[in-house]
Amino acid sequence: MKDGTDIHAMMSDIGARARAAAAELAYAPPERKTQALEAAADALWTRRAEIVEANAKDLEFGRDKGLSDAMMDRLMLDETRIAAIRDSLRAIAAQADPVGQVIAEWEQPSGLHIQRVRTPLGVVGVIYESRPNVTADAGALCLKSGNAVILRGGSESFHSSAAIHECLVEGLCGAGLPEDAVQRVPTRDRAAVSEMLGMTDTIDVIVPRGGKGLVGLVQREARVPVFAHLEGIVHIYIDASADPAKALEVVLNAKTRRTGICGAAECLLIHRDAVDTIGQGVIHALIDAGVEVRADETLQAISGTHAAVEDDWGREFLDTIIAARVVEDEDAAIAHIRQYGSDHTDCILAEDQAAIDRFVERVDSAIVMVNASTQFADGGEFGMGAEIGIATGKMHARGPVGAEQLTSFKYVVRADGAVRS
Amino acid sequence: MKDGTDIHAMMSDIGARARAAAAELAYAPPERKTQALEAAADALWTRRAEIVEANAKDLEFGRDKGLSDAMMDRLMLDETRIAAIRDSLRAIAAQADPVGQVIAEWEQPSGLHIQRVRTPLGVVGVIYESRPNVTADAGALCLKSGNAVILRGGSESFHSSAAIHECLVEGLCGAGLPEDAVQRVPTRDRAAVSEMLGMTDTIDVIVPRGGKGLVGLVQREARVPVFAHLEGIVHIYIDASADPAKALEVVLNAKTRRTGICGAAECLLIHRDAVDTIGQGVIHALIDAGVEVRADETLQAISGTHAAVEDDWGREFLDTIIAARVVEDEDAAIAHIRQYGSDHTDCILAEDQAAIDRFVERVDSAIVMVNASTQFADGGEFGMGAEIGIATGKMHARGPVGAEQLTSFKYVVRADGAVRS
Repeated sequence: MKDGTDIHAMMSDIGARARAAAAELAYAPPERKTQALEAAADALWTRRAEIVEANAKDLEFGRDKGLSDAMMDRLMLDETRIAAIRDSLRAIAAQADPVGQVIAEWEQPSGLHIQRVRTPLGVVGVIYESRPNVTADAGALCLKSGNAVILRGGSESFHSSAAIHECLVEGLCGAGLPEDAVQRVPTRDRAAVSEMLGMTDTIDVIVPRGGKGLVGLVQREARVPVFAHLEGIVHIYIDASADPAKALEVVLNAKTRRTGICGAAECLLIHRDAVDTIGQGVIHALIDAGVEVRADETLQAISGTHAAVEDDWGREFLDTIIAARVVEDEDAAIAHIRQYGSDHTDCILAEDQAAIDRFVERVDSAIVMVNASTQFADGGEFGMGAEIGIATGKMHARGPVGAEQLTSFKYVVRADGAVRS
Repeated sequence: MKDGTDIHAMMSDIGARARAAAAELAYAPPERKTQALEAAADALWTRRAEIVEANAKDLEFGRDKGLSDAMMDRLMLDETRIAAIRDSLRAIAAQADPVGQVIAEWEQPSGLHIQRVRTPLGVVGVIYESRPNVTADAGALCLKSGNAVILRGGSESFHSSAAIHECLVEGLCGAGLPEDAVQRVPTRDRAAVSEMLGMTDTIDVIVPRGGKGLVGLVQREARVPVFAHLEGIVHIYIDASADPAKALEVVLNAKTRRTGICGAAECLLIHRDAVDTIGQGVIHALIDAGVEVRADETLQAISGTHAAVEDDWGREFLDTIIAARVVEDEDAAIAHIRQYGSDHTDCILAEDQAAIDRFVERVDSAIVMVNASTQFADGGEFGMGAEIGIATGKMHARGPVGAEQLTSFKYVVRADGAVRS
């Protein structure tokens, strides 16, 4: 499996089987998909001891490889986490089936009755890193939306993903659905990733979930369309009109509730007129909460801050660190976000309606927040159910990518022998 | 302008200017865009003599190049055609502005008020061939949808496109909008096309409109996302349950009304049980209407038909020619369409509801027609106004691509200091 030819042949075969499964899955009855997902959830729970055992192999591999504690924690599965994965599968099973939904419907004077009907995309390739739960979530969301999926997890979670994948296949088989609907790339060889990025004949879209290394590889090599998932370089702008109490609460929550998620705040932009009235208090509170504040020249005057370096702007810390800078006015804040942001989630704290409107209009991020914690950037919090991730590109999907965002549509045009004059 | 370095520098400059214009255009007031389009329409009419003069140069170039009569006709502009282009600009001016439309809106128990708001895509690159009217239509649709556009027309329509482009720029300037919002690539060098396909930093999506040569180039080289516009290899399947009178009328219209458009029928699939009852009559009628019928072995028995060769299946004739074959049953028709179709428009003629449902469910073309002429495959006929073309891919846009399909969306989340627990 280590030479290119074999990987190419293996991936071509996986692609062809996915394409065939997708054709069948596209018109699978909704109740069969639900049944498959429920059975997969049951299997996951029944086989939890096996899964923990498989995970132990991954943890050992990770230790040998010298993974960080944070990485090891992401990788680890125990009964509680397996129960959470099971519950997520059940929640996706219970979601409405998007395929076949009539999105719009109208009549034309020519006698045409036109419907815009949701359809699956076809074959989705998901490339991800260490979290083994993505195997279940991504597999289930693709199945719910009628897509065949090719899952390529990170080498660290190799055995855990395999064990979870077996449960999904068990669900498919029990429901009479093609087992090739959810395939897993059975090799750690990274050549498989490059192969996937070029499989334009068999993969319709790639969803890459991972750090800078993966994103760079995808940007260089992808020939298949991609739902870009860039970093969450999340900014909060405190306007001169912001409410001090709200600002304090929102900033603290946005930075400290969980620092490792993509909606965590990474940079604070403070209007010059709000520095003394609000900024000082917010920065002191952050420092008291254990956050390292990397401040620009002006804010360095506040005791306990550290000097920011150029590299701190536009950086995703995913840690108890935040960059902070003073801006002359709102437009300077917007310009900073344009220059350093990643179009993921950005927020304004303000009471002045004109300032809010200007920010909402001019900041073109997937999610623009007003007086709300950026930690809400999440499909579940949006009421959309489970998500594969937050898309930062503008093509097709944007923001939280759930089952609905994994669909396309077609026009169904009915008439009674209508001809065009 | 003939060496690669200059083209690269020129295109980089065009890209950077488009990106800057797009940032400004994204929040341009709707009435300014309308004003710009109306002024462009007026300018087009005022300058019609200049345009005809420019067109004369293109026609001369075309004659020297030995273009076919059909190509020369596509290229030709006279007062009538200029009036049609002017009217199309006015119609786009009168359309609703999609930018800022709230597509969906809901509340979450956490106190979030969430809106999904339409936004421009950013910078659109349009690569097209000889028809000069595309310069006006594509430019206007991109402007209406708040996108900056880079237009790269075919070398045949070089001077005509330049003259039309000047009218669009006059409209922009009069309305106080950035003139870089609608740019034209001022060279015939094809290296500019390759450049555009790789401008991932400045172009958000490429809309290629053209024949196999262009489509192949785009498939090989594009790094920028593409709204694929493949050929219209349009099939009509006559089911055993089809109504003979409707079948006759629809097939004749679908093939002969206009043979050069992408919605023209190119292949007839006839259920074995309908050959004698309907097929014979339809084929005779086509032959009587001057259509060359390239038939499979069975249908060759009908006098006046020609023998089809393998290459005739899946071929876009764009002429008074149609391929025709007998299929054993509906599934064989669906399988033929899957194998030879281009996911553009395909049609079933049937009265049996189960047969209709099966076809609609299993044929995954952008447009699936039931008992209607495929010549209706057109944004105008769908009530969507002008279109850049019919997208045959499944990502983002599908079917007729009008102003609305040239938009993305963002989530605007408002609260009153909400934090995530």
